[in-house]
Amino acid sequence: MTTSVLYLEDLTIGRIFESATHTLDAAEIKAFAGQFDPQPFHLDEEAAKASLFGGLAASGWNVAAITMRLMVESTPIAGGLIGAGVEIAWPRPTRPGDTLRAVSEVVEATPSRSRPDRGMVLVRTNTFNQLDEIVQSLSARMVVPRRPSPEIDE
Amino acid sequence: MTTSVLYLEDLTIGRIFESATHTLDAAEIKAFAGQFDPQPFHLDEEAAKASLFGGLAASGWNVAAITMRLMVESTPIAGGLIGAGVEIAWPRPTRPGDTLRAVSEVVEATPSRSRPDRGMVLVRTNTFNQLDEIVQSLSARMVVPRRPSPEIDE
Repeated sequence: MTTSVLYLEDLTIGRIFESATHTLDAAEIKAFAGQFDPQPFHLDEEAAKASLFGGLAASGWNVAAITMRLMVESTPIAGGLIGAGVEIAWPRPTRPGDTLRAVSEVVEATPSRSRPDRGMVLVRTNTFNQLDEIVQSLSARMVVPRRPSPEIDE
Repeated sequence: MTTSVLYLEDLTIGRIFESATHTLDAAEIKAFAGQFDPQPFHLDEEAAKASLFGGLAASGWNVAAITMRLMVESTPIAGGLIGAGVEIAWPRPTRPGDTLRAVSEVVEATPSRSRPDRGMVLVRTNTFNQLDEIVQSLSARMVVPRRPSPEIDE
């Protein structure tokens, strides 16, 4: 993990960024669901047993939000992480006690034709649990500034 | 808005579901960002002025989470809203004081070939602000149960 900011020139195809980890518990799952996704399988263990999930599971939006936090801390793109559009899949549930980490890979990096100061990158971020199973796969298109030219003193 | 649950047979192509509204303020934007998306343009008005957003803006994940809440309350699909995968675009920022509402339209509805008790729907949900501008466009694929056959008494 680096603390210097990243420009388009730093985001070479195949470059990987690994995040720290975050362990979420049942209280966190229920708190998020109560605010944003109040469905029984995110709120109550007993009700969740009878659902498609077969037990308490985190809202996919909770997993997405945690992943964003992990990315912000591990991928210091200049100007910030600003997504123009994303695709997300949740191939399996996230459960109480799971420890999540995000691994991001640069898939495309394209300078803008009309704006010489920026470009667009496509970053694929897989969120893994403690068994190294993918719980979320995210592809995000982001605007990234190019490295400024050094100023030349007269 | 209806309180009876919806099965695959109810989700006809073109059917529309309109949500209630939610107004978010700067405190809510900053609280979400502090927990999940701690970037200056979501946390601090002054820092946001110098960013691509030109002023405080909600995290896209905050808009997505609010939209989920609005959908859960207005689209009572049997078994719950369980997304297999989604695509999201955020064509413009959401600002403090914006009043959001979600309009969902059934785009595809396909019975499963292998599982006669369910099917897959594609729902497009646009989130509008109070000026009727789209701040988020979401396409979600969801598993939906078919209506159970009525039990026949002997």
